[in-house]
Amino acid sequence: MTRKELVQQIKLKQSFLCVGLDIDTSKIPVHLLNSKEGHWDFLKEIIDVTLPYTVAYKPNTAFFECMGIEGWHLFNKVVQYLQNKSVLIIADAKRGDIGNTSQKYAETFFHTYSCDAITVAPYMGKDSVAPFLDYKGKWTIVLGLTSNTGSEDFQQQTLQNEKPLYTQVIETVASWGTEDNTMFVIGATKGIAFESIRKVVPHHFLLVPGVGAQGGDLATVAQYGLNEDCGLLVNASRSILYASSDNNFASAAAEEALTIQCQMAMLLKAKGITS
Amino acid sequence: MTRKELVQQIKLKQSFLCVGLDIDTSKIPVHLLNSKEGHWDFLKEIIDVTLPYTVAYKPNTAFFECMGIEGWHLFNKVVQYLQNKSVLIIADAKRGDIGNTSQKYAETFFHTYSCDAITVAPYMGKDSVAPFLDYKGKWTIVLGLTSNTGSEDFQQQTLQNEKPLYTQVIETVASWGTEDNTMFVIGATKGIAFESIRKVVPHHFLLVPGVGAQGGDLATVAQYGLNEDCGLLVNASRSILYASSDNNFASAAAEEALTIQCQMAMLLKAKGITS
Repeated sequence: MTRKELVQQIKLKQSFLCVGLDIDTSKIPVHLLNSKEGHWDFLKEIIDVTLPYTVAYKPNTAFFECMGIEGWHLFNKVVQYLQNKSVLIIADAKRGDIGNTSQKYAETFFHTYSCDAITVAPYMGKDSVAPFLDYKGKWTIVLGLTSNTGSEDFQQQTLQNEKPLYTQVIETVASWGTEDNTMFVIGATKGIAFESIRKVVPHHFLLVPGVGAQGGDLATVAQYGLNEDCGLLVNASRSILYASSDNNFASAAAEEALTIQCQMAMLLKAKGITS
Repeated sequence: MTRKELVQQIKLKQSFLCVGLDIDTSKIPVHLLNSKEGHWDFLKEIIDVTLPYTVAYKPNTAFFECMGIEGWHLFNKVVQYLQNKSVLIIADAKRGDIGNTSQKYAETFFHTYSCDAITVAPYMGKDSVAPFLDYKGKWTIVLGLTSNTGSEDFQQQTLQNEKPLYTQVIETVASWGTEDNTMFVIGATKGIAFESIRKVVPHHFLLVPGVGAQGGDLATVAQYGLNEDCGLLVNASRSILYASSDNNFASAAAEEALTIQCQMAMLLKAKGITS
């Protein structure tokens, strides 16, 4: 999915919502666990009811991997189901290794599973990120400033050049790719930091987890983060998927997604981003 | 595998060799590709012939993942085969995410697949590493200073406190775990840096990739890196696995592993680490 196509979908749906598919056996409605296909039934239902309000889906590989081989069957089924639905398919995998190994990760998610995008950890530097960027028509989403408290430990440390590490990472990685193939993960819980980050990467898309269960505020994120093309994909996972743990999980999820989409539509309208 | 058991094996085999299982279809002998089980036959043979010289195996998840679901069957088969062989089984996965997601990765590699250890990326900080450390009897191997040129981009940047980022990472992460459950990845190509790293973590084990195909020098690593318990696991992957691309691949791999083990035996002897 190109940037142009993504922006088109954002305008069309008046939404920059990404639904995080963190499938968790301990949280899905109990009645689904009696069926062999219960996990799939749950995810298919979630996708079906949220699709009108959503421009991206982000299956989180950890939640699939921990089911063993069955989990990878499920991951594949989800990604296949999302093809041709005009949504950005993001493998939230946070991979990254030396060049020849990152090549294999890129092959895994871009070729073997046909995802549009993957999240990548920057610690190992340029040759660990470049193999992802080499794939034409795909997106590399690099960790910048994450939503968790642990972001203080290293990301927010100040370098000798007086920049926080995350600023250095964003600035440097931005020079390796383009606005058409690179995004950054910026946690919604870091609202005010969006202002300084937008000075470094005014035109890039930012993937923003942390709204909902993690406590980030959508209005603050939008205030400092929106750009001329929207430039934001705000993710919600648990607050949508597990809006209800009962038979009505799908309608509860749809309602939660719709609520977020309505807020987003207002924010986009205020910014003059309309279809 | 506990630290005591690992040190016992090192003394017994007079080796601190880790064999990296980077299975690569484009590099295994062509005759094996005719068989459905060719990848497994290759890896089983490599394990069988290198086992006398090796204290750890490190399947690199990227090389399995890129084969799709078949790759995970193969990964599982390899890990099962390595059980009860008195070797440390390291999932080289470089995972790391917010707490609830890292928990799932820890479950994947420690529980679903019964590995002894996993490599972890530190960028997201304490709550991304802690879920791995929480597993009793398992090892968390955190990226410190890696062997690739990209390590200059961020790891070697100097912080305001005048420490390089990698030193800060090693020092901080060391305070989260113990010498019995935490190791660090330090690239063999950074020979001289081992001297300063040993001042920060004198007693920890270090996992050292980069000898062989990547050009690191074993003698330099040992000179600065060995400690009273050996404290090193030096990894070789391609130089052993693909020592020959012909029918004699297994004997060539065994010869390469034996050559490294002989060097290691001399280095251990000089340090007074004997069985």
